[in-house]
Amino acid sequence: MHKPQIKAYGTESKDADLKQIQIHRREILPNDVEIDILFCGVCHSDIHTARNDWGGSKYPVVPGHEIVGIATKVGAEVKKFKVGDKVAVGCIVDSCRTCSSCREHLEQYCLNGMVGTYNGKDAHLGGHTFGGYSEKIVVDENYVLKVPENLDMAAVAPVLCAGVTTWSPLRHWKVNKNSTIAVVGLGGLGHMAIKLAKGLGAHVSLFSRSQHKIQDAKDLGADEVIISTDENQMKQLRGKFDVIIDTVPYVHDLNPYISTLKHSGTLVLVGYLGPLNEILNTAPMVVGRKSVAGSLIGGIKETQELLDFCGEKNIVSEIELIDIQEINEAYERMIKSDVKYRFVIDMKSLKNADSD
Amino acid sequence: MHKPQIKAYGTESKDADLKQIQIHRREILPNDVEIDILFCGVCHSDIHTARNDWGGSKYPVVPGHEIVGIATKVGAEVKKFKVGDKVAVGCIVDSCRTCSSCREHLEQYCLNGMVGTYNGKDAHLGGHTFGGYSEKIVVDENYVLKVPENLDMAAVAPVLCAGVTTWSPLRHWKVNKNSTIAVVGLGGLGHMAIKLAKGLGAHVSLFSRSQHKIQDAKDLGADEVIISTDENQMKQLRGKFDVIIDTVPYVHDLNPYISTLKHSGTLVLVGYLGPLNEILNTAPMVVGRKSVAGSLIGGIKETQELLDFCGEKNIVSEIELIDIQEINEAYERMIKSDVKYRFVIDMKSLKNADSD
Repeated sequence: MHKPQIKAYGTESKDADLKQIQIHRREILPNDVEIDILFCGVCHSDIHTARNDWGGSKYPVVPGHEIVGIATKVGAEVKKFKVGDKVAVGCIVDSCRTCSSCREHLEQYCLNGMVGTYNGKDAHLGGHTFGGYSEKIVVDENYVLKVPENLDMAAVAPVLCAGVTTWSPLRHWKVNKNSTIAVVGLGGLGHMAIKLAKGLGAHVSLFSRSQHKIQDAKDLGADEVIISTDENQMKQLRGKFDVIIDTVPYVHDLNPYISTLKHSGTLVLVGYLGPLNEILNTAPMVVGRKSVAGSLIGGIKETQELLDFCGEKNIVSEIELIDIQEINEAYERMIKSDVKYRFVIDMKSLKNADSD
Repeated sequence: MHKPQIKAYGTESKDADLKQIQIHRREILPNDVEIDILFCGVCHSDIHTARNDWGGSKYPVVPGHEIVGIATKVGAEVKKFKVGDKVAVGCIVDSCRTCSSCREHLEQYCLNGMVGTYNGKDAHLGGHTFGGYSEKIVVDENYVLKVPENLDMAAVAPVLCAGVTTWSPLRHWKVNKNSTIAVVGLGGLGHMAIKLAKGLGAHVSLFSRSQHKIQDAKDLGADEVIISTDENQMKQLRGKFDVIIDTVPYVHDLNPYISTLKHSGTLVLVGYLGPLNEILNTAPMVVGRKSVAGSLIGGIKETQELLDFCGEKNIVSEIELIDIQEINEAYERMIKSDVKYRFVIDMKSLKNADSD
């Protein structure tokens, strides 16, 4: 099989900076779409995988799963796309398609393991998959998404991960115009959660530890900002929220938030995977039929549904556009939460770079 | 107001045995039903309240909230009941009736505090309410339930608390004939959970630490028994259950059970209120959209729905009938889990006792 070589940005080890490298993509198969990548969002998972924070990273790591571009080739059997279409790829490029989760359009919970856009198992070329910090990507059409014509191509990129990660629980827990919801944390995920929940018509509050975030949150559409370190404010909120979307990416105490849930309410963790150091008290959960849940990205069908919703409501992410050569600095700034609210790489900067 | 004096069984302090005492009941008001108590189930909450395990107990404590009897008087405005009806009273004898929870028929989550059948605030006589370890009780008709004619009056008593405590989450989390569910713990709650989930048509497994429970659980209708201390058995169950009803009344590690939930599944705590000593790991919750929830007894409407369901399916509790004079010994046996599966007091034993 001919394997075209293209430019990418990746890292050879957990301690190394990302730099320009060469990778291969497969020639398109009958169901494939080849995509010229225009923009790629930068997700915290990119850093975690590049630095092997979760273990199991395979090198070189080429991150990037918020991919937006133009279809440049389509296979003979592709039905949904044609050359020139505005398309996108999120966190998933394949799954078993036969298990109960896949049949329910929940590929993110594929029982045989979804194929991640990067560091997944590449069934075509062997080895592992490479993500969107690259010139092109080739993906089966069933895992390719349509981008609404009216949306800014750069600013839509974060919808593919940060967006759907908050959208999926908002939909699963049936948030609507009668819902009162709260978001914990105002970063890439949090700012999308506010916009999407507002788009669904809900009353939206932000929990933040910082006074500085009040105006920012209101500018994004939040109805209210609660300073979570202020015990008086917290007390007044007992029994208020139907759903809390908790985007905080590090371990933290859930108990103060649980007491602000209404009976039958749910706190959904989308940012932190790991053991809770603070002991969870089940008493308020039993006495109010409250739940603590988790949720992982979203399926292909609901990602398309979200893109269509964003098109209809004219919702995109707030971004800082960077060149690929600035990626290592961007990672350092993300770790310090110094970004409003998502870095997106303008992939022209890679295309125009000399091949090494 | 004339306050008829009747015989009851209660305790004057947390360290004292229960003994025969005298209490008052109110004369019936226009909306009240006076009930001659025939049987009263014995719940773990009775012990916790008698012994002030949760703090805040008011003495004398007269426990009992699984009450079955015959209507002996009805107020002028009572519409649903007539003298001679088989009736029941569960854990709730009043609530505010105006808050959002009450309006949703979820009196157990009344925002102004439901009035418990015992140790609640008595708005009529002052002081606190007295439960079913007594000859009679007077309750507003809106908190009185109808007992289906075909059911054994003694064996139906535990349905009022143990039954509805497991029924409410089975219904809220939509268990049906396509569901695969598990029950943790085989006591008063657990044995009702098995019967009710089978009644709803679900596939039901029991988690137990004891080989001795296998035959008992199957006799109750369980399709399968999993020995939870057997790691091999536990591993084979990954991703199996839609809902787990966890009836264990003491602190325990939830993590092994969470891994047996299917994606989007829920583990519902109905037995343990308090801090979890074992640290909850959120990773499998996020990666499988799994929830940990709590649930408290059930509302009046769903309790009646349950009684009707039990009538239709001919479901009652497995009981050991005792005299009221055996109650202190029964408490000691319950603490050792030495009962299959619920003690029910034959209240003739109080009626026939000499007044002190």
